Amino acid sequence: MTMSTQTHDTPPLYMRLAYAIERQISTGALRVGDRLPSIRKLQREQGVSVSTILQAYFWLENRGCIEAKPQSGFYVRLPHPRTPREPEFRRTSSRPTELGMSKFLVEVVNAANDPANVPFAVSTLRPDMFPNAKLNQIIRKTIQRNPDHSGNYMLPPGYIGLRRQIARRSLALGCSLSPDDILITCGAMEGLNLALRAVARSGDVIAIEGPTYFGVLQVIEWLGMKAIEIPTHPREGMDLEALDSAIKRHDVKACLVMANGHNPLGLVLPDARKRELVELTTRHEIPLIEDDAYGDITFTDVRPKCLKAFDKKELVLTVSSFSKILGGGLRLGWIDAGRYRQQVAELKFINTLASPTLSQMIVAEFIETGGYDRSLRKLRATLSDQVHSIRQAVARFFPDETRVSNPSGGYSLWIELPKNVDAMQFYRAALEHKIGVLPGPIFSASKGFTNFIRLSCGYPLTPDVERAIHTLGGICERQS
Amino acid sequence: MTMSTQTHDTPPLYMRLAYAIERQISTGALRVGDRLPSIRKLQREQGVSVSTILQAYFWLENRGCIEAKPQSGFYVRLPHPRTPREPEFRRTSSRPTELGMSKFLVEVVNAANDPANVPFAVSTLRPDMFPNAKLNQIIRKTIQRNPDHSGNYMLPPGYIGLRRQIARRSLALGCSLSPDDILITCGAMEGLNLALRAVARSGDVIAIEGPTYFGVLQVIEWLGMKAIEIPTHPREGMDLEALDSAIKRHDVKACLVMANGHNPLGLVLPDARKRELVELTTRHEIPLIEDDAYGDITFTDVRPKCLKAFDKKELVLTVSSFSKILGGGLRLGWIDAGRYRQQVAELKFINTLASPTLSQMIVAEFIETGGYDRSLRKLRATLSDQVHSIRQAVARFFPDETRVSNPSGGYSLWIELPKNVDAMQFYRAALEHKIGVLPGPIFSASKGFTNFIRLSCGYPLTPDVERAIHTLGGICERQS
Repeated sequence: MTMSTQTHDTPPLYMRLAYAIERQISTGALRVGDRLPSIRKLQREQGVSVSTILQAYFWLENRGCIEAKPQSGFYVRLPHPRTPREPEFRRTSSRPTELGMSKFLVEVVNAANDPANVPFAVSTLRPDMFPNAKLNQIIRKTIQRNPDHSGNYMLPPGYIGLRRQIARRSLALGCSLSPDDILITCGAMEGLNLALRAVARSGDVIAIEGPTYFGVLQVIEWLGMKAIEIPTHPREGMDLEALDSAIKRHDVKACLVMANGHNPLGLVLPDARKRELVELTTRHEIPLIEDDAYGDITFTDVRPKCLKAFDKKELVLTVSSFSKILGGGLRLGWIDAGRYRQQVAELKFINTLASPTLSQMIVAEFIETGGYDRSLRKLRATLSDQVHSIRQAVARFFPDETRVSNPSGGYSLWIELPKNVDAMQFYRAALEHKIGVLPGPIFSASKGFTNFIRLSCGYPLTPDVERAIHTLGGICERQS
Repeated sequence: MTMSTQTHDTPPLYMRLAYAIERQISTGALRVGDRLPSIRKLQREQGVSVSTILQAYFWLENRGCIEAKPQSGFYVRLPHPRTPREPEFRRTSSRPTELGMSKFLVEVVNAANDPANVPFAVSTLRPDMFPNAKLNQIIRKTIQRNPDHSGNYMLPPGYIGLRRQIARRSLALGCSLSPDDILITCGAMEGLNLALRAVARSGDVIAIEGPTYFGVLQVIEWLGMKAIEIPTHPREGMDLEALDSAIKRHDVKACLVMANGHNPLGLVLPDARKRELVELTTRHEIPLIEDDAYGDITFTDVRPKCLKAFDKKELVLTVSSFSKILGGGLRLGWIDAGRYRQQVAELKFINTLASPTLSQMIVAEFIETGGYDRSLRKLRATLSDQVHSIRQAVARFFPDETRVSNPSGGYSLWIELPKNVDAMQFYRAALEHKIGVLPGPIFSASKGFTNFIRLSCGYPLTPDVERAIHTLGGICERQS
């Protein structure tokens, strides 16, 4: 077991140690009856104090996971309380739907972002988890070298220095992009907007995943388009047969998916499935928009490929972002719009004219000097740890029938509550306890997933956060 | 005559002095036969060297404006070659038009922004004319105080610190806005987008000025709306009778105007006309969108009022920007959408989610500490000087029948070429000489103004710039 080191307001060390041990128990690395490492050994290996180790062991003992045997040490007493099962694959309705949830979404988003609430609803890391010191160092250097930065518009397609760096990194995405393929946007949200507007118009039908990121549903709604929800498997992605038949029956104009670090499913689509999907949409000559905002923060050994890696006809539009890795305040993303490049450039010009200059300069420098990939490696390890710890806590505190996704990327947990729990009621009850969660139906064009919630794991599992999960578990118990 | 001091790559001092003297001749402050100030007097008053003054006088003598009389000094020899007349008011067609100029506009905008071309086509100041040193100082302070800035999304309506400062300044705009009235955007372009999308849909008719900013025409086109062009007088603004009848005949859904520092006309609408306009659209219950991006840089004694100052029914949507004053690279503007606030907040959320955090923090600080208003005062003086010097140069080098607007704000000159000169041919010929200008028809829904061009005066009148105007004058001569 390894633990990344963090500095302030992180989970107490003993707690991280305890969760790490518990994870070993749950994976079977430690089994019932096994003796835990001696305090001296742990002290040497992990470089933590004796009292921290004792605190962790007592904490596990209190929960009944381990027991102390006099003169001998600590032993695993119970198998991990429960390895939660993953949500089942559900067929969702596949009829084109006019949406109509803007009002409610505004309420939900406002609640999500109220700093008074425990932040299980926000799609961002805790601000101090980003590589801020490095970024600020680069800002200081950049404004010295380019004092006129703010006087310079970076008109579409955006700052060449940044486009060059993105192109260089594209090999890791399985592509070989040229700087001219890329257009810089104000985050992935603008990218999705431009992509949808470039390929479809009001009244057109867009095939989306069920569940999918609620922001996409809002964009589709405001553009007057209709969504058709394709059932999406937590490991295999979109049901391709359902997609095929939807395309044939409903004159679908575009398809939109998150293949890497899906929000909320956390899935990373296997390469074979990516290829099949691209082949299917290409066969129908339909543009395929991929939202790759979480593509860089997956827990896989190598950076997973983009759908664009399988694109032979310039029909894939890849939308990505630096928000999830460097911070959303920068407002930076990019799009490679394939054969729709010209339209997207025009749309960018009239949508926001340009993206922020200083942001583009500092991200270019951060990538060029290797800082981006270094901070990414650290972030992936931290996040994997964080997401899976929170998953353990949910397993502990929620009723047994609860199912929890086992994410391969991103930082969402997609939780299936016991059948008779209503996500909306759950959401409201949580809010009364000053805890923000997102109810399942907002991730669905057909307003399905009525007993699902999404829990964001962007904040470390501190004792406060653990207490909040305990509280949520209690609410669920009462409502089920 | 006064001259602001600038540091590097500005017009040579002798040239600015010469232009200032010439302006005195053109206004009649100095008349034919008058003796120019003695070299000693000028030296004392302006704090410039004898050789600079002599250079200026020889320059004016070379052009035949003044003559030296032995033992006596320099005398005005000719009245100013010509005080150019302003363009005439033209009635433009008032039928709803589907636009269709995106392709061409992309070409024009690319040419405009090619740094190889003399920048008469770009709508921005030369980057070193912005208060960069001050802004960078604030950036250093801000990132020290808020190291986590980029980790923080400033979700709609945006950073409260900035909204508070904008609200405080709103008294100068004739309004009394509350921070809650204001939503921060990625520049005025996003503001116009959100405003149009909040009040109208595809197929709807929008009343616009003729001429108007070409970006607005593109937005309207991409949103599938139609534009009806209302003839617009260079001093009195929109022809209100024409507007009234257009509203009655064509079910106009919104009206969009630039009342302060109009681009390209440079007009500042008199208060009485503002009131009439607001009363007219209010009577018809039509939302009135005002683009106030240039409102802070007018050459009037006081900051002119916004249309919103006359709004009693929350039907005016005010869109403004910091791009023209602090630099477009910041990507910051704001909107008060009146009764459409909720819709605009939703649209902002799905369009770009948020505006750049650091930009919002530094602009808030710059306003709060008084730096904004200080730099505005300097900028207004510099720009008024710059715009009117370039106007003089146009008057000197273009054929006599040329008419040139006399701007009260902004930095556009709207130039009416001799009748038989075709703006498109002129634009292409200028481009062959590596000079960017914008042809009149792109400012028109009906593609009128075929013998007009817009000349941006965002760059100081250096000898190179003056030479370019000379070249343009020659092109015009040949084509007329």
